[in-house]
This record gives sequence, C-alpha cells and structure tokens, in this order.
Amino acid sequence: MSAEGLAPAPAVVDTPSQPLALALDLGGTRFRWAIVDAGGRLLRRAEGASEEGITRARLMARLEEVARQILADHGAALAGLGAAVPGPMDPSRGYIYAAPNLPCLDAFDFKRYWEDRLSLPVWAANDADLAALGEQRFGAGKGAQHLVYLTVSTGVGGGFILDGRLYQGAGGPVAEVGHMVIDAQGPPCRCGRLGCLEALASGTAIARMAAEALAQRPGWSPAGREGGISGPVTAEQVATAARSGDDLAVDIFARAARALATAILNLIHLLAPEMIILGGGVTRAPDLLLPTIREQVIAGVLPGFRVPPIVTAALGDNAGLVGAACLVFDHYRGRAGTDSSLR
Amino acid sequence: MSAEGLAPAPAVVDTPSQPLALALDLGGTRFRWAIVDAGGRLLRRAEGASEEGITRARLMARLEEVARQILADHGAALAGLGAAVPGPMDPSRGYIYAAPNLPCLDAFDFKRYWEDRLSLPVWAANDADLAALGEQRFGAGKGAQHLVYLTVSTGVGGGFILDGRLYQGAGGPVAEVGHMVIDAQGPPCRCGRLGCLEALASGTAIARMAAEALAQRPGWSPAGREGGISGPVTAEQVATAARSGDDLAVDIFARAARALATAILNLIHLLAPEMIILGGGVTRAPDLLLPTIREQVIAGVLPGFRVPPIVTAALGDNAGLVGAACLVFDHYRGRAGTDSSLR
Repeated sequence: MSAEGLAPAPAVVDTPSQPLALALDLGGTRFRWAIVDAGGRLLRRAEGASEEGITRARLMARLEEVARQILADHGAALAGLGAAVPGPMDPSRGYIYAAPNLPCLDAFDFKRYWEDRLSLPVWAANDADLAALGEQRFGAGKGAQHLVYLTVSTGVGGGFILDGRLYQGAGGPVAEVGHMVIDAQGPPCRCGRLGCLEALASGTAIARMAAEALAQRPGWSPAGREGGISGPVTAEQVATAARSGDDLAVDIFARAARALATAILNLIHLLAPEMIILGGGVTRAPDLLLPTIREQVIAGVLPGFRVPPIVTAALGDNAGLVGAACLVFDHYRGRAGTDSSLR
Repeated sequence: MSAEGLAPAPAVVDTPSQPLALALDLGGTRFRWAIVDAGGRLLRRAEGASEEGITRARLMARLEEVARQILADHGAALAGLGAAVPGPMDPSRGYIYAAPNLPCLDAFDFKRYWEDRLSLPVWAANDADLAALGEQRFGAGKGAQHLVYLTVSTGVGGGFILDGRLYQGAGGPVAEVGHMVIDAQGPPCRCGRLGCLEALASGTAIARMAAEALAQRPGWSPAGREGGISGPVTAEQVATAARSGDDLAVDIFARAARALATAILNLIHLLAPEMIILGGGVTRAPDLLLPTIREQVIAGVLPGFRVPPIVTAALGDNAGLVGAACLVFDHYRGRAGTDSSLR
C-alpha cells in the first residue's frame, strides 16, 4: 500500500521453499556470521574477535554489533539462526555446558538468549558436529549416509553422520574422538588421562613432540624456523621442516599420522562409515599425513570391513557456518513433514 | 469341513498381529533353535553341537535335522527365520563373509540356502548385534534408544542400538568393540595388532595373564585349580582364585576391568549411550569386574557427559535367539508401515 516502489529489492528471492539462514560460528578467538542460502552458499559475511578473559556480556554485545551489520537488509527474510558453538552442549535445549576455549559461555542458555535478542528461532550444536553436517550436505561427503568427520587443530574434535543424520546420542555431547584413548601407556592429555588421540596427533601434540626432540638433540633447528631454536616450536614449523626432509620432523608427523590411523581404524571397526573426512589446521598438511594414514589403515583393517575413502574437508573454515545453517533448513523442512537432522 | 474335531489345537494362537518366529543362534561349538513369540518368549527349543573341522554340508544337515524336531507342529504358523551367526556378515544380503570360529561358513549365502530349504523368509545378522537387539527389546535395556552391548567371553564382541535401531552402518560388520585399540603399546592380539580390547580383557586374555603370572611366580597355584599348576590356567580358575583373595588373580581381574573401563569410556565419549550392557561368560563374574569398571568410568568421564548405568545382560544365553526373532517381527511390522530394526 505505502511506498512500494521505494522498498529495496531483496538480493535473493526468499520464498518458503527457499529460506535463508543466519549462521554463527563461534570459536575460541574469532567468531563469524553469515547469511546462508538453502544451497549452502554464503551470501553475506562479517566477523569479529574475542580476547582471553572476555566477559559474557562483552562478547554477546560484540556478537550482536557484528550481526546487525549483515542483518540490516535481511532481517525480515530469515528463517532462523543456526549456531556452531565450541564445547559440549545440549542441542535439544540450545544449552552450553562448558566451553573450555571460551569459558564465559560455561552454563549458558544460548538459545533463549538469542531468541530474545533477535526474535528469530535459534538452533545450536557443537561446532565439530556441525562441520560434519556441513561437509555431508555441501562438502566432501555429499550424499554419504554414514560419515565420520575429524578436525585436527590445537585439539581434536569430531562429528558423526549416521543413517543420514547428525548423530546426537542420548543428549549432551557426542563424537569426542579427541579423547578416545588409543595408547593407555602414552603421553598425558590435558583431560587428565593418558594416550588420548588429542595427546598424540593434535597441533599441540606435534609441538610437544618437537620440544621433546629439541631436548634430546639440542642443536636441532627445524627448517624455516625463525630465530634459531629459541621459543616454542609450532606445528607449522615442524611441517615446514618435514617438507624439507628433516628426519626428526618427518618422524613427528609419521607418529601423528599413525595415531590418527589407529583412531580411524577404531572408528571404521565401530561404525563402518562410507567416508572419513579430515578437517582443521593440521590437515592442511595432507601431504605429510594422508599417505601414512591410508597405508596404516589398509594394513590394519579387519577382514570383512571396507576401507572407506579418507579425504580432506572441502568447505574449509566455512563447514561450521554451513552446518549451522542446515539446522535451520532442516527444521524448516521438518515442519513440511520430512526428517530433520537433529532429533 | 473334514474332521475338524480331530485337528490339534495350536499351542499359541497365531494371528497376523501375533506372529511366531523360528530363531537360530549359531555358535562356534553349539547351535540352538527356538520358536519365539512376539513377546520374546521361547516356546520350543532344541539344540545341537558341531565339532572342529565340520564341513558345511554336515553342519547344515545337522541344523536341519534339529530344526525339523520343533518345526513339525509349527511350520505353518511361522512368519520367518531369524538367525544369529558368528563373524562378520552383510545382513542386507544374509551373506556371511567369514566365521573365524566356524570356518565352514566362510563366504556363505546363508539366507538363500535356508530360504530354499525351509520355504520361509530368512533374515540373519551378527550374533553380538542381535544380542544387543534382544536386550533392548526384552532384556536389560528395555526402552533404551541408545545402548551399547559388549559381550566378553573367549573373545570380545559388541552391538549398538542407536536412535532406537540396531546400528548397521554402511553395510558389512559394525560394532567390533573387541578390536578397538586402547593400548597401542600393549600385548599382541590375534588380529595381528597390539592392544585391542580383546587382548586385554577377554577370557583368553585373562588366561594369558595367568600364564604370565605363573611364569613369574612358578609356585603360584590359583585356588580351586585342579591338579596343581600343570596345564593352562582358565579364566574360571582365575575367577575362583580372585574370589578367595589370591592377590595375583585379583590383580589380573583388575587389569581386565580397567581395560573394559577404558573401552567403555571411549564408547561413552563417542556415542553417549543411555546404557551399557555387559554379557558373555566373563561377565558372569560381575563381582570381580563391575565395581572397578564403574569406579574407573566415573573417574575418567569428561565434563558434560553422563555416566550411563553399566549393567549385566538379562537374557543370558537367549539374547541372540530373542534378537534373531526380532528381525522377523520387525520385518513383519515394517510391512505394516512402521520402522524395522534393520535398514
């Protein structure tokens, strides 16, 4: 009726069959917002950072400020907010139990908070679970009904797609592959136990093995390392050294790869997935990991089991955002009578 | 029309809503047939044995002979045959890949064979998977939607109920919990790798630890052991010795219990089940295992995860038969429009 000609044309036609989702990937040091379409494409993006010790109020205010930047011309067309959050949570309630890398989120009713702030329906799940979902819908695992996703960065996380759906268990966290004990006489993990996968194959573990190598061979200087051997060695420096043929660095990556292969074999023997997808920073060195992983998996697989393709993630840093948007789309479709990914 | 008065009254009324199943549990040395009703009750039973090196033809003939004993008065009323078979198989085809304890079944089209012989529809699945299903429907896990079943006998096997259904993965075997590596620097397993759960907690592992203890302390004689220390020690003898307070025997069971706890923690952190059910011969010594298992699981569980009840199986030796019958009933219900346990 009023001033129709002046209304801004929407960038994307938003009909009930083509919803848009607001997606949030909330990491330990950075957060990213995006508007995602039903084809998994990111239409608008905005990001921000948090610092150690940030309060919940300050982080929420910063999140909202950045969100408003991309909401200005899309608010009315969004079907909901999907959020990937770090740490164990209860997706059915959108409640975060604990966020080891972002402690201000401990015991936080995330869903209720954002539903009040944005007047949008909100769904949230663990970031690694949602990366698995994103990869299954729009990434390396398109069409797979049974898929294991591992993310190897500072820590090790994971997510499972089982029988076509994001596996959520009986409530609370699942797919904590980083704390699968595979070497009960192995090195201590930050969780207090010995021989978790994370203590053997994460970026932190690679840096620790490098520090141990330095202690054993004091003159060792990984190639590409700036400033000689002072200060802690990073996983990236070990990767550079391994690529230049440094034997200690090659051995460190081989040990990480063997640990990943043991964990992957356990997951194959437990879940018989069609595909294993590796994401996260450490797997940006696939040349140093994948050949050993594949060789060890083939050598160790039990009779009767298939060795599934072991591939790197396709969506990179966007997997969590895309998976978070899928929560919204699935709810939307769920209302139309089909299955939702979260049960 | 003819001699109605002389027809034998059926023992159980078999209407389409109350089907009966013929069930088979085919073990490495014994096999058992039963007729099972939709309430999980065994109405008729018959059993037989096989010897090492038996040929497939001879075993099949013996199976059929015993089956005919209970089929005589029930043949017309049965909805199908459900079979629990040892070793990895493809339940969608009823095909056995390999049966380590019954090699004459290797590469056997079990379903086709029995459909031809009995003129009944046949479903088959792995015995540990079906024990999990039996326990969920009629045993210790009644009503659980997410359940992990472990069977600890000569070897270690398992089965998962996830999202209310027997988990079958992408085809072929699943839930091989016995070959989850939890101690990569541990003792060798018969599968060729090191530190599988089976090498640490099975009856075979307990006997091996006892033999090692004997070698270290030659005069050791587990209480209740007949004939002194000659001949191999059995897990049962170690259990008897542990109950009488023998320190070496107590330590052996404690080591097995700690390995089981590590494996159970891994499964809790991966799958977040509502319940853990322990079956098999070794768990007939729950007093020697469960207290240590529960204590270790509570001590090691990650924040955010619930410790589910850890209980012993309720159906005993009948779990596989009851689970096998469920395959038949589920197919029956599946036709009526509801879900089947096998997808």
